Amino acid sequence: MAAPAVSSSEAIIFYDLLSTAPGKAWSPNTWKTRFALNYKGLPYKTVWVEYPDVAGVCNEIGASPTDTWPDGSPWYTLPAIYDPNTKTTVSDSAMIARYLDKTYPDTPVLIPPETDAFHAAFQEVFLLTIQKSILPLLLPPSVTVLNPPSAAYFRRTREMLYSKPLEEFSPDGPVREGYWQELQAGFAKLAQWMSANGQDKPFFMDEKICHADLLIAGWLKWAKTVWGPDSTEWATIMQWDSGKWARFMASFEPYEVVDA
Amino acid sequence: MAAPAVSSSEAIIFYDLLSTAPGKAWSPNTWKTRFALNYKGLPYKTVWVEYPDVAGVCNEIGASPTDTWPDGSPWYTLPAIYDPNTKTTVSDSAMIARYLDKTYPDTPVLIPPETDAFHAAFQEVFLLTIQKSILPLLLPPSVTVLNPPSAAYFRRTREMLYSKPLEEFSPDGPVREGYWQELQAGFAKLAQWMSANGQDKPFFMDEKICHADLLIAGWLKWAKTVWGPDSTEWATIMQWDSGKWARFMASFEPYEVVDA
Repeated sequence: MAAPAVSSSEAIIFYDLLSTAPGKAWSPNTWKTRFALNYKGLPYKTVWVEYPDVAGVCNEIGASPTDTWPDGSPWYTLPAIYDPNTKTTVSDSAMIARYLDKTYPDTPVLIPPETDAFHAAFQEVFLLTIQKSILPLLLPPSVTVLNPPSAAYFRRTREMLYSKPLEEFSPDGPVREGYWQELQAGFAKLAQWMSANGQDKPFFMDEKICHADLLIAGWLKWAKTVWGPDSTEWATIMQWDSGKWARFMASFEPYEVVDA
Repeated sequence: MAAPAVSSSEAIIFYDLLSTAPGKAWSPNTWKTRFALNYKGLPYKTVWVEYPDVAGVCNEIGASPTDTWPDGSPWYTLPAIYDPNTKTTVSDSAMIARYLDKTYPDTPVLIPPETDAFHAAFQEVFLLTIQKSILPLLLPPSVTVLNPPSAAYFRRTREMLYSKPLEEFSPDGPVREGYWQELQAGFAKLAQWMSANGQDKPFFMDEKICHADLLIAGWLKWAKTVWGPDSTEWATIMQWDSGKWARFMASFEPYEVVDA
Protein backbone atom coordinates (compact mmCIF):
# COMPACT_ATOMS: atom_id res chain seq x y z
CA MET A 1 0.00 0.00 0.00
CA ALA A 2 1.32 3.45 -0.89
CA ALA A 3 1.96 5.83 1.99
CA PRO A 4 -0.78 8.46 2.30
CA ALA A 5 0.22 11.66 0.51
CA VAL A 6 1.38 14.48 2.77
CA SER A 7 -0.37 17.78 2.19
CA SER A 8 1.94 20.75 1.79
CA SER A 9 -0.78 23.11 3.05
CA GLU A 10 1.38 24.63 5.77
CA ALA A 11 4.41 26.60 4.58
CA ILE A 12 7.78 24.91 5.11
CA ILE A 13 10.10 27.02 7.27
CA PHE A 14 13.35 27.61 5.38
CA TYR A 15 16.35 28.90 7.36
CA ASP A 16 18.58 31.04 5.15
CA LEU A 17 21.60 33.30 5.72
CA LEU A 18 20.89 37.03 5.56
CA SER A 19 22.90 39.45 3.41
CA THR A 20 22.65 43.12 2.43
CA ALA A 21 22.59 42.22 -1.27
CA PRO A 22 19.38 42.86 -3.25
CA GLY A 23 17.02 39.96 -2.53
CA LYS A 24 18.88 39.16 0.73
CA ALA A 25 19.78 35.57 -0.29
CA TRP A 26 23.43 34.98 -1.25
CA SER A 27 24.82 31.66 0.08
CA PRO A 28 25.65 28.98 -2.54
CA ASN A 29 24.47 26.20 -0.26
CA THR A 30 21.15 27.73 0.81
CA TRP A 31 20.46 28.72 -2.82
CA LYS A 32 20.43 24.99 -3.68
CA THR A 33 17.47 24.56 -1.31
CA ARG A 34 15.72 27.78 -2.35
CA PHE A 35 15.99 26.69 -5.99
CA ALA A 36 14.63 23.27 -4.94
CA LEU A 37 11.62 24.75 -3.11
CA ASN A 38 10.84 27.16 -5.95
CA TYR A 39 11.30 24.49 -8.62
CA LYS A 40 9.04 22.08 -6.76
CA GLY A 41 6.49 24.84 -6.20
CA LEU A 42 6.21 24.10 -2.48
CA PRO A 43 4.95 26.90 -0.20
CA TYR A 44 7.65 28.08 2.20
CA LYS A 45 8.58 30.98 4.40
CA THR A 46 12.14 32.18 4.94
CA VAL A 47 13.58 32.77 8.40
CA TRP A 48 16.67 34.95 7.95
CA VAL A 49 19.60 34.10 10.21
CA GLU A 50 22.89 35.91 10.92
CA TYR A 51 26.00 33.68 11.05
CA PRO A 52 26.63 33.93 14.81
CA ASP A 53 23.06 32.65 15.40
CA VAL A 54 23.24 29.56 13.15
CA ALA A 55 24.29 27.06 15.83
CA GLY A 56 21.66 28.35 18.26
CA VAL A 57 18.88 28.20 15.68
CA CYS A 58 19.91 24.67 14.61
CA ASN A 59 19.91 23.50 18.22
CA GLU A 60 16.52 25.06 18.79
CA ILE A 61 14.90 23.26 15.82
CA GLY A 62 16.91 20.04 16.27
CA ALA A 63 18.91 20.32 13.03
CA SER A 64 21.98 18.05 12.96
CA PRO A 65 25.44 19.50 12.34
CA THR A 66 26.65 18.69 8.81
CA ASP A 67 30.41 18.85 9.44
CA THR A 68 33.04 19.29 12.16
CA TRP A 69 35.41 22.21 12.74
CA PRO A 70 39.16 21.42 12.77
CA ASP A 71 39.01 21.26 16.59
CA GLY A 72 36.42 18.48 16.36
CA SER A 73 33.42 20.50 17.53
CA PRO A 74 30.15 20.19 15.59
CA TRP A 75 29.70 22.57 12.63
CA TYR A 76 26.08 23.63 12.20
CA THR A 77 25.25 24.96 8.77
CA LEU A 78 22.36 26.25 6.71
CA PRO A 79 20.27 25.40 4.76
CA ALA A 80 17.94 23.71 7.21
CA ILE A 81 14.18 23.34 6.99
CA TYR A 82 11.38 22.62 9.42
CA ASP A 83 8.30 21.10 7.81
CA PRO A 84 5.21 21.66 10.00
CA ASN A 85 3.22 19.21 7.81
CA THR A 86 5.33 16.31 9.04
CA LYS A 87 6.97 17.97 12.07
CA THR A 88 10.38 17.15 10.55
CA THR A 89 13.66 19.08 10.64
CA VAL A 90 16.29 18.41 7.95
CA SER A 91 19.72 19.98 7.32
CA ASP A 92 22.14 19.61 4.36
CA SER A 93 20.88 20.51 0.86
CA ALA A 94 21.15 16.95 -0.54
CA MET A 95 19.29 15.46 2.44
CA ILE A 96 16.65 18.20 2.12
CA ALA A 97 16.26 17.40 -1.59
CA ARG A 98 15.82 13.68 -0.78
CA TYR A 99 13.33 14.51 2.00
CA LEU A 100 11.26 16.73 -0.31
CA ASP A 101 11.37 14.13 -3.14
CA LYS A 102 10.06 11.47 -0.78
CA THR A 103 7.52 13.55 1.14
CA TYR A 104 6.05 15.34 -1.88
CA PRO A 105 6.20 12.72 -4.65
CA ASP A 106 3.92 14.78 -6.90
CA THR A 107 6.62 17.45 -7.28
CA PRO A 108 9.53 17.08 -9.74
CA VAL A 109 12.17 14.66 -8.41
CA LEU A 110 15.64 16.14 -7.77
CA ILE A 111 17.62 13.03 -6.78
CA PRO A 112 16.13 9.98 -8.51
CA PRO A 113 17.00 7.16 -6.05
CA GLU A 114 18.99 5.25 -8.68
CA THR A 115 21.28 8.34 -8.90
CA ASP A 116 21.96 8.57 -5.14
CA ALA A 117 25.53 7.30 -5.52
CA PHE A 118 26.14 9.38 -8.64
CA HIS A 119 24.95 12.51 -6.83
CA ALA A 120 27.24 11.76 -3.87
CA ALA A 121 30.20 11.18 -6.22
CA PHE A 122 29.35 14.38 -8.11
CA GLN A 123 29.43 16.38 -4.89
CA GLU A 124 33.02 15.19 -4.35
CA VAL A 125 34.17 15.93 -7.89
CA PHE A 126 32.40 19.33 -7.86
CA LEU A 127 34.45 20.22 -4.80
CA LEU A 128 37.68 19.50 -6.69
CA THR A 129 36.55 20.88 -10.05
CA ILE A 130 34.78 24.11 -9.07
CA GLN A 131 34.75 24.82 -5.33
CA LYS A 132 38.51 24.53 -4.84
CA SER A 133 39.28 27.42 -7.21
CA ILE A 134 36.16 29.57 -6.77
CA LEU A 135 36.33 29.69 -2.95
CA PRO A 136 39.53 31.79 -2.73
CA LEU A 137 38.05 34.15 -5.33
CA LEU A 138 34.62 34.57 -3.72
CA LEU A 139 35.21 34.29 0.03
CA PRO A 140 37.01 37.68 0.36
CA PRO A 141 34.36 39.84 -1.39
CA SER A 142 31.55 37.99 0.42
CA VAL A 143 32.15 39.97 3.61
CA THR A 144 31.07 43.11 1.71
CA VAL A 145 27.48 41.81 1.42
CA LEU A 146 27.15 40.75 5.07
CA ASN A 147 25.89 42.67 8.08
CA PRO A 148 28.61 43.47 10.66
CA PRO A 149 27.97 40.48 13.01
CA SER A 150 27.98 37.97 10.12
CA ALA A 151 30.92 39.70 8.39
CA ALA A 152 33.05 39.46 11.55
CA TYR A 153 32.10 35.81 12.10
CA PHE A 154 32.71 34.93 8.44
CA ARG A 155 36.13 36.64 8.39
CA ARG A 156 37.24 35.02 11.64
CA THR A 157 36.20 31.45 10.72
CA ARG A 158 37.42 31.56 7.10
CA GLU A 159 40.77 33.07 8.10
CA MET A 160 41.09 30.30 10.69
CA LEU A 161 40.35 27.60 8.08
CA TYR A 162 42.82 29.03 5.51
CA SER A 163 45.39 30.24 8.08
CA LYS A 164 45.72 33.67 6.41
CA PRO A 165 43.88 37.00 6.13
CA LEU A 166 41.01 37.13 3.61
CA GLU A 167 42.96 39.74 1.63
CA GLU A 168 45.65 37.12 0.90
CA PHE A 169 43.29 34.37 -0.37
CA SER A 170 43.55 35.48 -4.01
CA PRO A 171 45.75 38.57 -4.31
CA ASP A 172 46.03 40.24 -7.72
CA GLY A 173 48.71 38.68 -9.87
CA PRO A 174 49.71 35.10 -10.69
CA VAL A 175 47.89 33.49 -7.72
CA ARG A 176 44.56 35.02 -8.70
CA GLU A 177 45.25 34.34 -12.38
CA GLY A 178 45.91 30.70 -11.50
CA TYR A 179 42.57 30.32 -9.73
CA TRP A 180 40.78 31.83 -12.71
CA GLN A 181 42.48 29.40 -15.07
CA GLU A 182 41.58 26.47 -12.82
CA LEU A 183 38.00 27.66 -12.62
CA GLN A 184 37.71 27.98 -16.40
CA ALA A 185 39.17 24.48 -16.80
CA GLY A 186 36.67 23.24 -14.19
CA PHE A 187 33.68 24.65 -16.05
CA ALA A 188 35.09 23.27 -19.31
CA LYS A 189 35.09 19.83 -17.66
CA LEU A 190 31.46 20.20 -16.55
CA ALA A 191 30.56 21.21 -20.12
CA GLN A 192 32.48 18.23 -21.50
CA TRP A 193 30.68 15.81 -19.14
CA MET A 194 27.34 17.31 -20.16
CA SER A 195 28.14 16.44 -23.80
CA ALA A 196 29.80 13.08 -23.06
CA ASN A 197 27.72 11.38 -25.72
CA GLY A 198 28.29 14.01 -28.40
CA GLN A 199 25.14 16.06 -27.83
CA ASP A 200 25.29 19.14 -25.57
CA LYS A 201 22.71 18.62 -22.82
CA PRO A 202 20.98 21.60 -21.15
CA PHE A 203 21.04 19.99 -17.69
CA PHE A 204 23.09 17.30 -16.03
CA MET A 205 20.46 14.62 -16.65
CA ASP A 206 19.50 16.16 -20.02
CA GLU A 207 15.98 17.69 -20.10
CA LYS A 208 15.11 17.57 -16.40
CA ILE A 209 16.73 19.60 -13.63
CA CYS A 210 18.36 17.48 -10.91
CA HIS A 211 20.21 18.26 -7.68
CA ALA A 212 23.59 18.30 -9.50
CA ASP A 213 22.29 21.27 -11.54
CA LEU A 214 21.33 23.03 -8.31
CA LEU A 215 24.93 22.75 -7.10
CA ILE A 216 26.15 24.47 -10.25
CA ALA A 217 23.35 27.05 -10.19
CA GLY A 218 23.76 27.75 -6.45
CA TRP A 219 27.47 28.43 -6.74
CA LEU A 220 27.00 30.57 -9.85
CA LYS A 221 24.26 32.52 -8.10
CA TRP A 222 26.73 33.26 -5.29
CA ALA A 223 29.22 34.60 -7.85
CA LYS A 224 26.55 36.75 -9.49
CA THR A 225 25.43 38.16 -6.12
CA VAL A 226 28.89 38.94 -4.76
CA TRP A 227 30.53 40.23 -7.95
CA GLY A 228 27.33 41.74 -9.30
CA PRO A 229 25.49 40.98 -12.56
CA ASP A 230 27.32 43.84 -14.33
CA SER A 231 30.82 42.86 -13.24
CA THR A 232 33.63 41.79 -15.56
CA GLU A 233 33.98 38.59 -13.52
CA TRP A 234 30.37 37.57 -14.14
CA ALA A 235 30.55 38.53 -17.83
CA THR A 236 33.70 36.41 -18.17
CA ILE A 237 32.07 33.25 -16.81
CA MET A 238 28.93 33.86 -18.86
CA GLN A 239 30.95 33.69 -22.09
CA TRP A 240 32.84 30.48 -21.25
CA ASP A 241 31.96 27.29 -23.13
CA SER A 242 30.19 29.20 -25.93
CA GLY A 243 27.79 30.84 -23.47
CA LYS A 244 26.64 27.53 -21.98
CA TRP A 245 26.45 28.93 -18.43
CA ALA A 246 24.50 32.01 -19.53
CA ARG A 247 21.89 29.71 -21.11
CA PHE A 248 22.03 27.47 -18.04
CA MET A 249 21.45 30.34 -15.60
CA ALA A 250 18.67 31.78 -17.79
CA SER A 251 16.78 28.50 -17.21
CA PHE A 252 16.92 29.15 -13.46
CA GLU A 253 15.50 32.67 -13.60
CA PRO A 254 11.94 31.45 -12.87
CA TYR A 255 13.29 29.84 -9.70
CA GLU A 256 15.26 32.82 -8.39
CA VAL A 257 12.27 34.14 -6.47
CA VAL A 258 12.89 35.24 -2.88
CA ASP A 259 9.75 35.29 -0.75
CA ALA A 260 10.44 38.21 1.54
CA MET B 1 9.63 4.89 -36.54
CA ALA B 2 12.07 2.86 -34.48
CA ALA B 3 15.32 1.87 -36.15
CA PRO B 4 15.32 -1.76 -37.31
CA ALA B 5 16.92 -4.00 -34.69
CA VAL B 6 20.45 -5.16 -35.49
CA SER B 7 20.98 -8.89 -35.29
CA SER B 8 23.97 -9.96 -33.22
CA SER B 9 24.28 -13.18 -35.22
CA GLU B 10 27.92 -12.62 -36.14
CA ALA B 11 30.37 -12.60 -33.24
CA ILE B 12 31.78 -9.20 -32.27
CA ILE B 13 35.56 -9.12 -32.52
CA PHE B 14 37.00 -8.02 -29.18
CA TYR B 15 40.64 -6.93 -29.07
CA ASP B 16 42.17 -7.69 -25.68
CA LEU B 17 45.69 -7.62 -24.21
CA LEU B 18 47.35 -11.00 -23.72
CA SER B 19 48.93 -12.11 -20.45
CA THR B 20 50.43 -15.32 -19.07
CA ALA B 21 47.97 -15.31 -16.16
CA PRO B 22 45.31 -18.06 -16.01
CA GLY B 23 42.49 -17.01 -18.34
CA LYS B 24 44.86 -14.71 -20.29
CA ALA B 25 42.82 -11.54 -19.65
CA TRP B 26 44.28 -9.08 -17.11
CA SER B 27 43.87 -5.42 -18.15
CA PRO B 28 41.48 -3.30 -16.01
CA ASN B 29 40.28 -1.39 -19.05
CA THR B 30 39.64 -4.34 -21.34
CA TRP B 31 37.93 -6.17 -18.46
CA LYS B 32 35.29 -3.41 -18.47
CA THR B 33 34.39 -4.39 -22.03
CA ARG B 34 34.64 -8.14 -21.45
CA PHE B 35 32.31 -7.78 -18.46
CA ALA B 36 29.98 -5.70 -20.66
CA LEU B 37 29.89 -8.30 -23.46
CA ASN B 38 29.37 -11.18 -21.01
CA TYR B 39 26.72 -9.28 -19.03
CA LYS B 40 24.84 -8.38 -22.20
CA GLY B 41 25.15 -11.95 -23.45
CA LEU B 42 26.43 -10.86 -26.86
CA PRO B 43 28.44 -13.40 -28.89
CA TYR B 44 32.06 -12.31 -29.32
CA LYS B 45 35.46 -13.64 -30.15
CA THR B 46 38.68 -12.40 -28.56
CA VAL B 47 41.69 -11.41 -30.62
CA TRP B 48 44.69 -11.39 -28.27
CA VAL B 49 47.19 -8.60 -28.83
CA GLU B 50 50.68 -7.96 -27.44
CA TYR B 51 51.40 -4.35 -26.37
CA PRO B 52 53.87 -3.53 -29.17
CA ASP B 53 51.17 -4.48 -31.71
CA VAL B 54 48.32 -2.35 -30.31
CA ALA B 55 48.90 0.72 -32.49
CA GLY B 56 49.24 -1.41 -35.64
CA VAL B 57 46.07 -3.38 -34.91
CA CYS B 58 44.12 -0.19 -34.14
CA ASN B 59 45.28 1.39 -37.39
CA GLU B 60 44.34 -1.73 -39.31
CA ILE B 61 40.77 -1.79 -37.97
CA GLY B 62 40.37 2.00 -37.92
CA ALA B 63 40.13 2.38 -34.13
CA SER B 64 40.71 5.96 -32.95
CA PRO B 65 43.41 6.73 -30.40
CA THR B 66 41.90 7.45 -26.97
CA ASP B 67 44.67 9.64 -25.56
CA THR B 68 47.98 11.32 -26.42
CA TRP B 69 51.47 10.54 -25.16
CA PRO B 70 53.39 13.36 -23.44
CA ASP B 71 55.16 14.09 -26.75
CA GLY B 72 51.78 14.72 -28.40
CA SER B 73 51.67 11.57 -30.52
CA PRO B 74 48.43 9.53 -30.62
CA TRP B 75 48.03 6.87 -27.91
CA TYR B 76 46.17 3.83 -29.19
CA THR B 77 44.65 1.67 -26.47
CA LEU B 78 42.55 -1.43 -25.96
CA PRO B 79 39.73 -2.32 -25.54
CA ALA B 80 38.55 -1.91 -29.12
CA ILE B 81 35.84 -3.87 -30.90
CA TYR B 82 34.88 -4.50 -34.50
CA ASP B 83 31.25 -5.40 -34.99
CA PRO B 84 30.75 -7.28 -38.28
CA ASN B 85 26.95 -6.91 -37.94
CA THR B 86 27.21 -3.15 -38.45
CA LYS B 87 30.75 -2.95 -39.83
CA THR B 88 31.64 -0.58 -36.98
CA THR B 89 34.88 -0.16 -35.02
CA VAL B 90 34.78 1.44 -31.56
CA SER B 91 37.52 2.11 -28.99
CA ASP B 92 37.31 3.28 -25.32
CA SER B 93 35.27 1.21 -22.89
CA ALA B 94 32.64 3.91 -22.24
CA MET B 95 32.12 4.53 -25.96
CA ILE B 96 31.90 0.76 -26.51
CA ALA B 97 29.27 0.50 -23.74
CA ARG B 98 27.25 3.32 -25.35
CA TYR B 99 27.58 1.70 -28.80
CA LEU B 100 26.40 -1.69 -27.50
CA ASP B 101 23.51 -0.08 -25.55
CA LYS B 102 22.33 1.68 -28.70
CA THR B 103 22.93 -1.12 -31.21
CA TYR B 104 21.52 -3.93 -29.08
CA PRO B 105 18.65 -2.28 -27.16
CA ASP B 106 17.27 -5.66 -26.05
CA THR B 107 20.34 -6.23 -23.87
CA PRO B 108 20.70 -4.67 -20.38
CA VAL B 109 21.63 -0.97 -20.62
CA LEU B 110 25.01 0.02 -19.11
CA ILE B 111 24.94 3.81 -19.51
CA PRO B 112 21.32 5.02 -19.38
CA PRO B 113 21.47 8.20 -21.54
CA GLU B 114 20.27 10.41 -18.65
CA THR B 115 23.39 9.27 -16.73
CA ASP B 116 25.87 10.18 -19.50
CA ALA B 117 27.18 13.21 -17.60
CA PHE B 118 27.20 11.36 -14.27
CA HIS B 119 29.20 8.52 -15.82
CA ALA B 120 31.71 10.99 -17.28
CA ALA B 121 32.04 12.76 -13.91
CA PHE B 122 32.42 9.40 -12.17
CA GLN B 123 35.28 8.45 -14.47
CA GLU B 124 37.11 11.60 -13.31
CA VAL B 125 36.47 11.04 -9.62
CA PHE B 126 37.36 7.32 -9.91
CA LEU B 127 40.74 8.38 -11.27
CA LEU B 128 41.38 10.50 -8.18
CA THR B 129 39.77 8.14 -5.67
CA ILE B 130 41.07 4.72 -6.79
CA GLN B 131 43.37 4.84 -9.83
CA LYS B 132 45.81 7.37 -8.37
CA SER B 133 46.77 5.10 -5.45
CA ILE B 134 46.29 1.66 -7.01
CA LEU B 135 48.42 2.37 -10.11
CA PRO B 136 51.78 2.62 -8.27
CA LEU B 137 50.89 -0.59 -6.41
CA LEU B 138 49.81 -2.65 -9.43
CA LEU B 139 51.92 -1.40 -12.33
CA PRO B 140 55.20 -2.97 -11.05
CA PRO B 141 53.91 -6.54 -10.52
CA SER B 142 51.99 -6.40 -13.82
CA VAL B 143 55.17 -7.05 -15.82
CA THR B 144 55.36 -10.49 -14.19
CA VAL B 145 52.19 -11.64 -16.00
CA LEU B 146 53.22 -10.33 -19.44
CA ASN B 147 55.09 -12.06 -22.25
CA PRO B 148 58.58 -10.61 -22.88
CA PRO B 149 57.64 -8.21 -25.74
CA SER B 150 54.70 -6.76 -23.78
CA ALA B 151 56.67 -6.70 -20.51
CA ALA B 152 59.49 -4.69 -22.12
CA TYR B 153 57.05 -2.26 -23.75
CA PHE B 154 55.04 -1.87 -20.55
CA ARG B 155 58.16 -1.20 -18.44
CA ARG B 156 59.59 1.31 -20.92
CA THR B 157 56.37 3.32 -21.32
CA ARG B 158 55.34 3.32 -17.65
CA GLU B 159 58.85 4.28 -16.50
CA MET B 160 58.76 7.13 -19.02
CA LEU B 161 55.38 8.35 -17.71
CA TYR B 162 56.45 8.20 -14.03
CA SER B 163 60.09 9.23 -14.66
CA LYS B 164 61.43 6.42 -12.45
CA PRO B 165 62.10 2.65 -12.51
CA LEU B 166 59.07 0.41 -11.84
CA GLU B 167 60.84 -0.86 -8.70
CA GLU B 168 60.61 2.66 -7.22
CA PHE B 169 56.86 3.22 -7.87
CA SER B 170 55.81 1.85 -4.46
CA PRO B 171 58.86 0.63 -2.52
CA ASP B 172 58.27 -1.14 0.80
CA GLY B 173 57.94 1.28 3.67
CA PRO B 174 56.08 4.55 4.21
CA VAL B 175 55.49 5.28 0.49
CA ARG B 176 53.78 1.95 -0.09
CA GLU B 177 51.95 2.22 3.23
CA GLY B 178 50.69 5.64 2.14
CA TYR B 179 49.26 4.29 -1.13
CA TRP B 180 47.50 1.51 0.76
CA GLN B 181 45.95 4.00 3.17
CA GLU B 182 44.81 6.19 0.25
CA LEU B 183 43.35 3.17 -1.50
CA GLN B 184 41.43 2.07 1.57
CA ALA B 185 40.10 5.62 2.01
CA GLY B 186 39.11 5.60 -1.68
CA PHE B 187 37.12 2.39 -1.39
CA ALA B 188 35.53 3.71 1.81
CA LYS B 189 34.37 6.72 -0.22
CA LEU B 190 32.86 4.50 -2.92
CA ALA B 191 31.07 2.53 -0.20
CA GLN B 192 29.83 5.76 1.39
CA TRP B 193 28.47 7.02 -1.95
CA MET B 194 26.73 3.70 -2.51
CA SER B 195 24.88 4.19 0.76
CA ALA B 196 24.32 7.95 0.40
CA ASN B 197 20.66 7.58 1.27
CA GLY B 198 21.21 5.35 4.29
CA GLN B 199 20.69 1.99 2.57
CA ASP B 200 23.74 0.07 1.32
CA LYS B 201 23.23 -0.53 -2.41
CA PRO B 202 24.72 -3.59 -4.13
CA PHE B 203 25.59 -1.66 -7.32
CA PHE B 204 26.16 1.97 -8.16
CA MET B 205 22.62 2.42 -9.48
CA ASP B 206 21.20 0.02 -6.85
CA GLU B 207 19.83 -3.24 -8.29
CA LYS B 208 21.11 -2.99 -11.87
CA ILE B 209 24.72 -3.13 -12.99
CA CYS B 210 25.90 -0.01 -14.84
CA HIS B 211 29.16 1.04 -16.46
CA ALA B 212 30.37 2.66 -13.20
CA ASP B 213 30.28 -0.80 -11.60
CA LEU B 214 32.34 -2.18 -14.48
CA LEU B 215 35.06 0.38 -13.71
CA ILE B 216 35.23 -0.84 -10.12
CA ALA B 217 35.02 -4.52 -11.12
CA GLY B 218 37.58 -4.14 -13.93
CA TRP B 219 40.16 -2.54 -11.67
CA LEU B 220 39.53 -5.07 -8.88
CA LYS B 221 39.85 -7.90 -11.40
CA TRP B 222 43.28 -6.52 -12.36
CA ALA B 223 44.31 -6.59 -8.68
CA LYS B 224 43.06 -10.15 -8.27
CA THR B 225 44.91 -11.30 -11.40
CA VAL B 226 48.24 -9.65 -10.65
CA TRP B 227 48.39 -10.28 -6.87
CA GLY B 228 46.57 -13.59 -7.09
CA PRO B 229 43.31 -14.67 -5.45
CA ASP B 230 45.22 -16.16 -2.49
CA SER B 231 47.42 -13.13 -1.81
CA THR B 232 47.39 -11.06 1.39
CA GLU B 233 46.76 -7.97 -0.75
CA TRP B 234 43.59 -9.40 -2.26
CA ALA B 235 42.37 -10.71 1.11
CA THR B 236 42.95 -7.25 2.60
CA ILE B 237 40.75 -5.48 0.04
CA MET B 238 38.09 -8.16 0.28
CA GLN B 239 37.60 -7.44 3.98
CA TRP B 240 37.35 -3.64 3.64
CA ASP B 241 33.97 -1.99 4.20
CA SER B 242 32.56 -5.04 6.00
CA GLY B 243 33.24 -7.29 3.02
CA LYS B 244 31.34 -5.10 0.56
CA TRP B 245 33.86 -5.67 -2.27
CA ALA B 246 33.86 -9.43 -1.76
CA ARG B 247 30.08 -9.44 -2.19
CA PHE B 248 30.42 -7.04 -5.10
CA MET B 249 32.97 -9.20 -6.93
CA ALA B 250 30.96 -12.37 -6.23
CA SER B 251 28.14 -10.78 -8.29
CA PHE B 252 30.52 -10.52 -11.24
CA GLU B 253 31.62 -14.17 -11.19
CA PRO B 254 29.04 -15.18 -13.84
CA TYR B 255 30.56 -12.53 -16.14
CA GLU B 256 34.22 -13.48 -15.65
CA VAL B 257 34.09 -15.94 -18.55
CA VAL B 258 36.95 -15.80 -21.04
CA ASP B 259 36.08 -17.28 -24.41
CA ALA B 260 39.40 -18.77 -25.45
